[in-house]
Amino acid sequence: MPGSSSVSAVRIEILNTGTELLLGTVLNTHGKWFGEELFKLGFRIQRLTTVPDGDAITQALRECVSRADVVIITGGLGPTSDDLTREAAAEVLGAELIEDEAAMRSLEAFFAIRNKVMAEVNRKQAQVLVGADVLPNANGTAPGIYVPPRLNGAANCAVFLLPGPPRELYPMFREEVAPRIVALAGLAKPPGMLELKIAGVGESDLQQEVDAKLAEIPDLEVGYCARVGEVDLRLIGDEAAIEAGRKIAEASFARQIFSDDGSSLEATVVRLLTRQGLKLATAESCTGGLISNRVTDVPGSSAVFTHGFITYANEAKRDILGVPQALLDAHGAVSEPVALSMADGALRVSGADIAVAVTGIAGPDGGTPDKPAGTVWIAWAAKGRPTVAVKQIHPRNRKDFKIATSQSALDGVRKIVLKMPHA
Amino acid sequence: MPGSSSVSAVRIEILNTGTELLLGTVLNTHGKWFGEELFKLGFRIQRLTTVPDGDAITQALRECVSRADVVIITGGLGPTSDDLTREAAAEVLGAELIEDEAAMRSLEAFFAIRNKVMAEVNRKQAQVLVGADVLPNANGTAPGIYVPPRLNGAANCAVFLLPGPPRELYPMFREEVAPRIVALAGLAKPPGMLELKIAGVGESDLQQEVDAKLAEIPDLEVGYCARVGEVDLRLIGDEAAIEAGRKIAEASFARQIFSDDGSSLEATVVRLLTRQGLKLATAESCTGGLISNRVTDVPGSSAVFTHGFITYANEAKRDILGVPQALLDAHGAVSEPVALSMADGALRVSGADIAVAVTGIAGPDGGTPDKPAGTVWIAWAAKGRPTVAVKQIHPRNRKDFKIATSQSALDGVRKIVLKMPHA
Repeated sequence: MPGSSSVSAVRIEILNTGTELLLGTVLNTHGKWFGEELFKLGFRIQRLTTVPDGDAITQALRECVSRADVVIITGGLGPTSDDLTREAAAEVLGAELIEDEAAMRSLEAFFAIRNKVMAEVNRKQAQVLVGADVLPNANGTAPGIYVPPRLNGAANCAVFLLPGPPRELYPMFREEVAPRIVALAGLAKPPGMLELKIAGVGESDLQQEVDAKLAEIPDLEVGYCARVGEVDLRLIGDEAAIEAGRKIAEASFARQIFSDDGSSLEATVVRLLTRQGLKLATAESCTGGLISNRVTDVPGSSAVFTHGFITYANEAKRDILGVPQALLDAHGAVSEPVALSMADGALRVSGADIAVAVTGIAGPDGGTPDKPAGTVWIAWAAKGRPTVAVKQIHPRNRKDFKIATSQSALDGVRKIVLKMPHA
Repeated sequence: MPGSSSVSAVRIEILNTGTELLLGTVLNTHGKWFGEELFKLGFRIQRLTTVPDGDAITQALRECVSRADVVIITGGLGPTSDDLTREAAAEVLGAELIEDEAAMRSLEAFFAIRNKVMAEVNRKQAQVLVGADVLPNANGTAPGIYVPPRLNGAANCAVFLLPGPPRELYPMFREEVAPRIVALAGLAKPPGMLELKIAGVGESDLQQEVDAKLAEIPDLEVGYCARVGEVDLRLIGDEAAIEAGRKIAEASFARQIFSDDGSSLEATVVRLLTRQGLKLATAESCTGGLISNRVTDVPGSSAVFTHGFITYANEAKRDILGVPQALLDAHGAVSEPVALSMADGALRVSGADIAVAVTGIAGPDGGTPDKPAGTVWIAWAAKGRPTVAVKQIHPRNRKDFKIATSQSALDGVRKIVLKMPHA
């Protein structure tokens, strides 16, 4: 596999325990979080397994330790009867559970500080495997447990037992777990990653253009991730490999790449507008406020975004943006002249430097043979430039139609701002 | 455990594939979604495994089919070189891959409808395992594949290969996968489920009020799911148990329950407005279009929503909605008088029957000791009723602040519409 030489060969598995994670009541964010944290340290997760509370933990843990160098188990360290991770680890790793004095003292302190009486069931939270390290928990009652490989009778694998709740898990991982994994691995330097976000190019077109060329770069790992109206190209390797990969992507798609630092399209647009001292207005029909909602998700957008118009009805297009009734009558709301007039109207009424307007048929109803659901006209007006419009067809469900349209609208704003002088 | 007798013994495992799920760049929401969907059908997930693209899929799939009755694999059906799920399944299940004519035709149609040329790499997406069912994909290029147990050389296990993106996965699961699993299990009738969606009540307040009473109902399983500005109360059991549970919830929270059929708050609002022949307008400052975006996510909303105003700047509040400059100068934009004036202005300018206005500080910057970030005024104006406003404080991150505010704004619309006569 290209690039694998630059990534640590330590095999890390995560084992999430908790019935609630498989019932659909709780979203498991551990995979993303651990992935991010470990990647920063130069590691990758080899596998993530989620099992319900109970016997399944023992079976899954036995499999994990047989495959991995490091296993991180989360959850099941609580005081109740379905918290069985300690017992499962003791069985699989062949170690006895004993009450740890220091752990017992911190448990008692946890309750004392809060003026609460400790329930008898909490005692079991002070139980640890013989010879293991106790990892202090400043934010909850369950201490973590670290079983080093040398003490592990079942396999040559380091095992961490950590609490499930993020407010307890995150600080414990950073303070107690990360340094131990780095020490185990004896790592020199983590690999780099570059993510190029690209609008207006399909995933397969992107791949067809660059994949073969990227494959020739030694030790570069390449990944593609398609979203609605966007493809992310991920390059992983050392600095030289990444820069070589970037050059290849830019040679074909310099204009389409809108971000190389993880920024969303809306954040990129707000950054460019801010840099050039320009103001944006929006006139939305079929997107119904999604464009302005995305822009205003960006902190600081109030400096560049002042007016948004959602002119869902024809009367709104006429009365608020000044679209002539004759234009609506002659061409219909979903037409080039109306899109152009909406953009011009938004620019004039708001006093902004650039305005984007969209008018289309989000569906599922409202389409005609001439203008099927998914049809949209997008227009851009800007001071000192001709107003332009394009027609697109996004035959998708309603929400994805809105996303795809907002993506094209914002990407058009980005391209025009790049051509405009600073205000 | 109450209700466990109604759960099927079919062993279901989910195998999520995708390097991006383990690198920390993408949040894996499949566990939660599958958990919810399968639970509604009377099933539970036995194990969820996430592995990177590549060889790991083959090994993990081999383990899954050895343990489970049904294995659902997601991801890796795309056109690119790191999409290897078909190949892994062919190897583990001992079946050959061939190009399926019907799948090829739908692929070609997918591109033809969009006026695009199909790239050569897409051809591999028409490859299916010999004897498998092709599951059509209306929302993407990758058809799903179903390998029934009888065709599966490796184990007596049913295997589904499904696309990863939710917009493709969700409809395919509901239309093609769910009925097949139900048929495999020979289930008579899944347990019933009622989901009551509740706004304006905290999770712990809800639980404190109803939990003990609900626990007294035999064979009723109870779940709570807290979202921003909403709690969902899930009741699972037979009809009598569910109705007894509903009575308890309604006795305390009749006004706060906005849906009992899974409808979102915006869908409920659009339905009520439509039923009563009323029109809504929005005037948004700090939510920046989120309220109108939510309303227009609902099919048919164009019948009840005509005008939305995003008046982010003071000048927009003044020029578009007619908020007096003196009011802005005297009280600031985030104030009761300005919120009331925005709502009145939106009602007047749009000619709608009801208008909602919000003005606040989304943060992270822009707060003052008097008006910290998270402060918002929400006002409602309606024909023939006094205009009213409330102040709320949502000390959350920017996006959650917007969601919480939009939730309160829409719930207020719902309550007012319920009191208004039909138009």
